[in-house]
Amino acid sequence: MSAPTPLGHAVVDLLGLVALGELLAFERMAADARLAPDLRRRAALSEMAAAEMVNYRRLADRLGALGVLPDDAMAVYVEPLQAYHDSTEPRDWAEAVTKAYVGDTITDDFLREIASALREPDRQLVLDVLHESRYAEFAAAEIRAAISADPKVAGRLSMWARRLVGEALSQAGRVAAADRGALTTLIAQGEQIDVAELFRRLTAAHTARMAAAGLNN
Amino acid sequence: MSAPTPLGHAVVDLLGLVALGELLAFERMAADARLAPDLRRRAALSEMAAAEMVNYRRLADRLGALGVLPDDAMAVYVEPLQAYHDSTEPRDWAEAVTKAYVGDTITDDFLREIASALREPDRQLVLDVLHESRYAEFAAAEIRAAISADPKVAGRLSMWARRLVGEALSQAGRVAAADRGALTTLIAQGEQIDVAELFRRLTAAHTARMAAAGLNN
Repeated sequence: MSAPTPLGHAVVDLLGLVALGELLAFERMAADARLAPDLRRRAALSEMAAAEMVNYRRLADRLGALGVLPDDAMAVYVEPLQAYHDSTEPRDWAEAVTKAYVGDTITDDFLREIASALREPDRQLVLDVLHESRYAEFAAAEIRAAISADPKVAGRLSMWARRLVGEALSQAGRVAAADRGALTTLIAQGEQIDVAELFRRLTAAHTARMAAAGLNN
Repeated sequence: MSAPTPLGHAVVDLLGLVALGELLAFERMAADARLAPDLRRRAALSEMAAAEMVNYRRLADRLGALGVLPDDAMAVYVEPLQAYHDSTEPRDWAEAVTKAYVGDTITDDFLREIASALREPDRQLVLDVLHESRYAEFAAAEIRAAISADPKVAGRLSMWARRLVGEALSQAGRVAAADRGALTTLIAQGEQIDVAELFRRLTAAHTARMAAAGLNN
């Protein structure tokens, strides 16, 4: 293992990771919007995608203020994040909204925990760019509607959600290996962060969300 | 030919056309951003795409205030606008920025002319959602950079630009046929609009833009 990086480095790395996450989430949602069954939902997902770029701009501006080119802060994460999206390309609208619901909310929960170790203004910035709850509500309502139209869909989407979590965990390991220890530094830094307890909370929230959308964990 | 629709209908039709144009431009730019040679340009085009959705929201809100569902106002234009984008899918970054430059600016010029026939607040709304000039400047700079890196590219991009204009004109005919006479009504309504003169102005502006980006008309 490499030596822990200074906290300054860790902040830049984390902001780069979150910024790239926004950029790729934008691309994915914009592409998935074409799977929407009607113009209303196509526009709704496109608007959510556009909101990611507003967040991206805030993170890029903050990196600029810290004297770092956004590209430099993001570059190291391109491969694992792109690999996650390439390995989990939705085949239809129901899979697309499930991916948005499962993937983005568990990532947000994780970032919310890590952000508690940051100093201001970065702490508030990361909290601000997490997805609004109306976004998860839209996705959950779409999943419930798909299941209510065809109950067999629940099994397929539940399996899909488990695959998403598996791929996300697998790529999270590559992110941790790629980032010069940023997340480890932050987790070690945060006095309130107990890693076992963190995973217990993330898992419990994920399980509750799956149930709320009519999916089996 | 069908009888001219009332001006109210024409306004709704035009707002629907512009709204769908924003939505599809968003989708196209978001997809084309993946062709970018680096993260900086990928993010730049993605941010421009996101700005289209802010415009879309303004148009959709105005349609809602007029008592019309955005989907209903847009539906009739889906086929010709989608056909334009499907028939002009860029193969690389240079073609993508040329499409943004040639297609969006000529469309904007046309809408700017038509908008002069609208009453407020719709007149100002349509003028507001036209692309900012920084957008055309970014695209023109990218085209010039591609040509300067490889002068042979100028011929290929010039041919591509002519094809874009041809496809746009062909689909514009289908738009006019689809829209219950909205554009015809507005053009007839606008006292200052002389159709032959309008096309002369559009062509002159297009020719000047091609030259500015190093392309041959």
